[in-house]
Amino acid sequence: MNTRHSGESRNPELKTSNVKGFVGAQRSGWHFLQIPGPTNVPSRVLRAIAEPTIDHRSPDFAELVCEVQAGLRWVMRTSGPVVVYAGSGSGGWEAALVNTLSPGARILVAETGFFALGWADVARRMHVDVEVLPGDWRRGADASAIEERLAADSTHRIQAVAVVHSETSTGAATRIGEVRRAMDRAGHPALLFVDAVSSLGCMDYRHDEWRVDVTVAGSQKGLMLPPGLAFNAVSEKAREAGRTGGLPRAYWDWEPIIAANESGFYPTTPSTNLLFGLREALAMLREYGLEQTFARHARHAQATRRAVETWGLEIQCTNPHEYSDVLTAVRMPEGHDADRVRQIIFDRFNMSLGTGLGKLNGRVIRIGHLGDFNDLMLAATLSGVEAGLMAAGVPIRRGGVDAALADLAVPE
Amino acid sequence: MNTRHSGESRNPELKTSNVKGFVGAQRSGWHFLQIPGPTNVPSRVLRAIAEPTIDHRSPDFAELVCEVQAGLRWVMRTSGPVVVYAGSGSGGWEAALVNTLSPGARILVAETGFFALGWADVARRMHVDVEVLPGDWRRGADASAIEERLAADSTHRIQAVAVVHSETSTGAATRIGEVRRAMDRAGHPALLFVDAVSSLGCMDYRHDEWRVDVTVAGSQKGLMLPPGLAFNAVSEKAREAGRTGGLPRAYWDWEPIIAANESGFYPTTPSTNLLFGLREALAMLREYGLEQTFARHARHAQATRRAVETWGLEIQCTNPHEYSDVLTAVRMPEGHDADRVRQIIFDRFNMSLGTGLGKLNGRVIRIGHLGDFNDLMLAATLSGVEAGLMAAGVPIRRGGVDAALADLAVPE
Amino acid sequence: MNTRHSGESRNPELKTSNVKGFVGAQRSGWHFLQIPGPTNVPSRVLRAIAEPTIDHRSPDFAELVCEVQAGLRWVMRTSGPVVVYAGSGSGGWEAALVNTLSPGARILVAETGFFALGWADVARRMHVDVEVLPGDWRRGADASAIEERLAADSTHRIQAVAVVHSETSTGAATRIGEVRRAMDRAGHPALLFVDAVSSLGCMDYRHDEWRVDVTVAGSQKGLMLPPGLAFNAVSEKAREAGRTGGLPRAYWDWEPIIAANESGFYPTTPSTNLLFGLREALAMLREYGLEQTFARHARHAQATRRAVETWGLEIQCTNPHEYSDVLTAVRMPEGHDADRVRQIIFDRFNMSLGTGLGKLNGRVIRIGHLGDFNDLMLAATLSGVEAGLMAAGVPIRRGGVDAALADLAVPE
Amino acid sequence: MNTRHSGESRNPELKTSNVKGFVGAQRSGWHFLQIPGPTNVPSRVLRAIAEPTIDHRSPDFAELVCEVQAGLRWVMRTSGPVVVYAGSGSGGWEAALVNTLSPGARILVAETGFFALGWADVARRMHVDVEVLPGDWRRGADASAIEERLAADSTHRIQAVAVVHSETSTGAATRIGEVRRAMDRAGHPALLFVDAVSSLGCMDYRHDEWRVDVTVAGSQKGLMLPPGLAFNAVSEKAREAGRTGGLPRAYWDWEPIIAANESGFYPTTPSTNLLFGLREALAMLREYGLEQTFARHARHAQATRRAVETWGLEIQCTNPHEYSDVLTAVRMPEGHDADRVRQIIFDRFNMSLGTGLGKLNGRVIRIGHLGDFNDLMLAATLSGVEAGLMAAGVPIRRGGVDAALADLAVPE
Repeated sequence: MNTRHSGESRNPELKTSNVKGFVGAQRSGWHFLQIPGPTNVPSRVLRAIAEPTIDHRSPDFAELVCEVQAGLRWVMRTSGPVVVYAGSGSGGWEAALVNTLSPGARILVAETGFFALGWADVARRMHVDVEVLPGDWRRGADASAIEERLAADSTHRIQAVAVVHSETSTGAATRIGEVRRAMDRAGHPALLFVDAVSSLGCMDYRHDEWRVDVTVAGSQKGLMLPPGLAFNAVSEKAREAGRTGGLPRAYWDWEPIIAANESGFYPTTPSTNLLFGLREALAMLREYGLEQTFARHARHAQATRRAVETWGLEIQCTNPHEYSDVLTAVRMPEGHDADRVRQIIFDRFNMSLGTGLGKLNGRVIRIGHLGDFNDLMLAATLSGVEAGLMAAGVPIRRGGVDAALADLAVPE
Repeated sequence: MNTRHSGESRNPELKTSNVKGFVGAQRSGWHFLQIPGPTNVPSRVLRAIAEPTIDHRSPDFAELVCEVQAGLRWVMRTSGPVVVYAGSGSGGWEAALVNTLSPGARILVAETGFFALGWADVARRMHVDVEVLPGDWRRGADASAIEERLAADSTHRIQAVAVVHSETSTGAATRIGEVRRAMDRAGHPALLFVDAVSSLGCMDYRHDEWRVDVTVAGSQKGLMLPPGLAFNAVSEKAREAGRTGGLPRAYWDWEPIIAANESGFYPTTPSTNLLFGLREALAMLREYGLEQTFARHARHAQATRRAVETWGLEIQCTNPHEYSDVLTAVRMPEGHDADRVRQIIFDRFNMSLGTGLGKLNGRVIRIGHLGDFNDLMLAATLSGVEAGLMAAGVPIRRGGVDAALADLAVPE
Repeated sequence: MNTRHSGESRNPELKTSNVKGFVGAQRSGWHFLQIPGPTNVPSRVLRAIAEPTIDHRSPDFAELVCEVQAGLRWVMRTSGPVVVYAGSGSGGWEAALVNTLSPGARILVAETGFFALGWADVARRMHVDVEVLPGDWRRGADASAIEERLAADSTHRIQAVAVVHSETSTGAATRIGEVRRAMDRAGHPALLFVDAVSSLGCMDYRHDEWRVDVTVAGSQKGLMLPPGLAFNAVSEKAREAGRTGGLPRAYWDWEPIIAANESGFYPTTPSTNLLFGLREALAMLREYGLEQTFARHARHAQATRRAVETWGLEIQCTNPHEYSDVLTAVRMPEGHDADRVRQIIFDRFNMSLGTGLGKLNGRVIRIGHLGDFNDLMLAATLSGVEAGLMAAGVPIRRGGVDAALADLAVPE
Repeated sequence: MNTRHSGESRNPELKTSNVKGFVGAQRSGWHFLQIPGPTNVPSRVLRAIAEPTIDHRSPDFAELVCEVQAGLRWVMRTSGPVVVYAGSGSGGWEAALVNTLSPGARILVAETGFFALGWADVARRMHVDVEVLPGDWRRGADASAIEERLAADSTHRIQAVAVVHSETSTGAATRIGEVRRAMDRAGHPALLFVDAVSSLGCMDYRHDEWRVDVTVAGSQKGLMLPPGLAFNAVSEKAREAGRTGGLPRAYWDWEPIIAANESGFYPTTPSTNLLFGLREALAMLREYGLEQTFARHARHAQATRRAVETWGLEIQCTNPHEYSDVLTAVRMPEGHDADRVRQIIFDRFNMSLGTGLGKLNGRVIRIGHLGDFNDLMLAATLSGVEAGLMAAGVPIRRGGVDAALADLAVPE
């Protein structure tokens, strides 16, 4: 078992620097958590998490589960069950696999970046036969390539197709509707798995309409919670696959959870306090409005790209129709180490940015503009990036923040 | 897959009753969460959980991991690593199994109650060959029976022995030191797995001294946190077993986590805010003193039994040397439904008690006296039980609280 | 200025004792704050107080003020304004005086205990002419004595009569309705001032029906908040007195506050975060129901007295028609120092009780059973007192908790 | 009593606008509370405020008072007592007056702006004889004018000189050291009163070195707390004045508080939970470093002025040696209503700015850059102002944020 587990983990970590400037007073004020998740958790949600833990077999708990189920279905746009786990997004990947795939099953993973490969890696570790559809990490999954590959799989060896909606390592989004149509055109019965970890709650997502079989999501991005919860929205077709097959499973098994949820409970002890937070976050999303929230993220993504273009830097995602609305990965010019820039920004401006993952290590900085965010937080974020680039000696044209501001000042 | 998942889930749930009396004003004041876990989370811990989420790749996070590791080793009494998962205790069971056991491996589970069987069930679902050493649910695991069974296993088919330290369904504790000695006497190389979910931090526990190979624990009992974290303390022998074997695994794989932890990080996104709470809870345990905390729980357990004896009711655990210090299961007289008693207590006294699990369903109430607890909380708890038994018409001798109080009033 | 300021302050303080037993582990669990205020603040209220501070000139703030005004009027049972100050209850006394009384004015204060005299003291310090109607600190204000005194005041020198609804130093309540009727019978135009600091939200109180002119209250008792806010509910007659008279005043001046409140604001910066808590506490009171809350306090007071009687101790209040529902002051037998008993209970049982104030110093312990409280909290409180009395060697009959429990177990 | 009470109150309030754009999604993310106080309270402080209320007569409370006293003396740079009230800053003004001034006493108030006049107003309401030294609201107090006036007061009718350190209505600071020297040169025995409400903890302040007699401060500015506490640091000379004189007083009387504080208590019930927050805030200031914090504020003030200059707008304070480091008041061009600009910024950018007070009503916006603040929060604030000015059609040169950023990007 010599493959390392995927995830955001093997990347350069920020260090407490002894660079002049990182002194106490620099750490005053809000920390800007502008990695592409976990996001800045609203204080309403943090306070909800601090409610006293209750008996997970009490009527109050049952009410909590009902509210949370209703909210998750609303945000996932599904009428089916959404399974909630204590776990990370990668746990959610594993759950999708073990509930549906038979031993020796093949899964087709569209390589959009680090996280797509991470999912493939988890699949291999669970002894699933993984086929990767290669990609250049600069765009979303190629629907026509998927169609072609499925069309060629006349024996239906491929049991599932896995794509990442918003690839958090590159800032490129896959158009899931197109993938669905491609699969339909190929007339292939494979299940459709979608990682919506960083997009859910920020970008338009339609579990039922797109006939997704398993949507994997997590708490720490658009759902505005701390990390610690993973989600699987599951179709009837996926459940059926699990009833007659699937891999050995206990913790991740959907059915006992779905059955218990019906009366408002869980088969084992759930992560009660994060569920308190989830209820509150879902209520906030309802207040904000889902469409309005999507529009806000689209607007912030556009203003961010305007800044990047002004700086004269290159955006990692090369297809304008596939820009993700939740993060923007920015390529550093040759000879400029992205992690040094991040470190300077962390030290001097009390802001965390995302590192380059996998083969993008040291090459990109990733700016998260997802979750509970607004215009002035974006202005602050872009200001920190612009000032940090200057401080790091990266050759840029100034005026990025200015250009973004001009966008934001216009009446919507 | 027709075995139901184990856990605390298939039991009668409390309902919001329309019994006269359960009106708004009855719900004023503190809820007494006297199930045997989750426990009453101290407000210090709740506030820690409400700290703003930070970047899990930042120096502050690395410091958090180091503190938490040091604290967990201290409370587990081990010098080895302790793996922390977002998960439930039953997830911790699964982790112990998949990291060590080869396909077709046999595990010997000592049937002490519902949770021992639950662990066996998870093992079966992971395709492990389970052998149950039968028990009557009224005492701890029988060390000599284990010795005998191991001695008979001359081919060493049994790869692991699994016992529950404090069986949360019965209130009977297993003397782990004796199990260790029994295994030594049998000269059998099986791994020793211990479920310390409800005992850790409340009862004397010695991972290294007893040469336990995997200790499974959870956040929501003696560690005074909400549910949502599971722990595996692992011996070098257990890790060695995993290096050369084990079952397919990704999320639960110890090694990437242990490796990442060394520099203070995780391979995937960890449950940051619960880790904030864990740091605080471990700090509190240090302030309280571990020995003093054990003594407190022993004292409260004894006072509780004094009350039960006064009432003339029967304690589920029949061996006085095996009373658990963290909960007391009390048998209801024939013809009296334990769940009705619990419901009345919930409705009238704003207190949750544990239900009877599995074959004890409707037969016992379980009184949790674990976690962040003190004399007056115990007095309140016993008062609620005594008044509830009376209100439910269960024939008891009064004076239980009185008898317990007499114990508590004596200078230690 | 050699008179000391009144208040709860000059009394023996609890000391961190080095008595064997007050070790770390003793401080585990909830602290029982059973002084007669501040009370145990519900975590809902504490979390509300932790909301981010907002602009006190914003529409959100105006909404807060409106909700709080509506809630305070509801709980005070008045249709008039309720002025909220950052301040203590004694600040509220001062406000009542300086807004209404002309220089040299005389006020008649019914001596019911330490707080009545405290109010008199504040009045003297503000150069008001104070006349004290003597009392023995064991009952409420004597309505017929007030009537008699007013009838004799043919020149109407007395501008106000001040009484304490629930005298927190003695546990005796004044029947305000009877005082009102007495004043009416005397046909005297004096204003009626009532200190409802410890009764508001716990005992039936009717500002308008009883034609009270100024009701003084505070946040830290029945309103379930931390200390820090004082209230004046004011009648039109009181405001009229202020318009043409009153003492020099700025901070305490009602009129600018009432005027600003009309549009939802304050003339100076208000205690925003305590107002967040107040909104939440008022919402909780609405959920509990006011009548139901009064009934609960009456029930708890009765159960407490049942315990005291069983112990064979004497209740400070001698008139059964004047027992306060919010606290019970218990006299210690000769030769037993009440503060030593309190210290033992604090050290061993993590509970705070009220000390004897003024001439009752060392003579009584005061048990608070007000605020957000329930049956099991009461059982815990009485258990702590009973065990503490035993530990302190005070000769009592045991069984007090038992007797109280019998009361509580009976269906309401 | 027809003078209105001073304070921040009689100014145009923000209204929930029905301007297109102020929709739910606009309110997502952090609110930027950039009025010049209350400031953005750090979450550490908010969580501290949410600790369960304790007995104000317990040893834990005494420890709290000692820590808070030590911290306040450190931040005030005094070795004398600091009296803490539940109250507003204007309550602190009143306290300074009533503890020291005899009936008919004269006080000389240097008119620096709205708050200086506010203090004068409170003094008049307390029947103090107020003499205002006129000013144009565009600079600090004129030390030489004070010297001249005192020199002319040969009979020493003037008992106190009152100046505002950082005049929150104008952004002009008074150089207190120079005022002190002027008073010394005049050889006049008047007391020196300083309002340090908005400067304390943000700008260099030296109570003892400058021989200030009463420093008035509040919790809601540089001390990073919600409003609700007022402070008086008092000299021995001021106390002596009070011992033999002063006005009628009870709540505000220093001596009972100072006496009780010595053993760690208060004469009346203090605002316990805000004191929890104060302890935390003072600990944070120690971590940040006082000098470093002053330097940070100076840097942010300079960057703000750089932006204002770039926009081509006028700063209210005309003397560069008297710029306050905590706020910048910016004059709007003729014909542009400052409150309309503020409303647009509030509606569209989720930021609160200060209104123009008194005669500056509608003329200035006040940008607060005090309290727990950092470079990116400043960038956000200036971005909001620049975009808001554009949106409001105020003619400005763009590039203000840019200019400020250039300042911030330079290594310190």
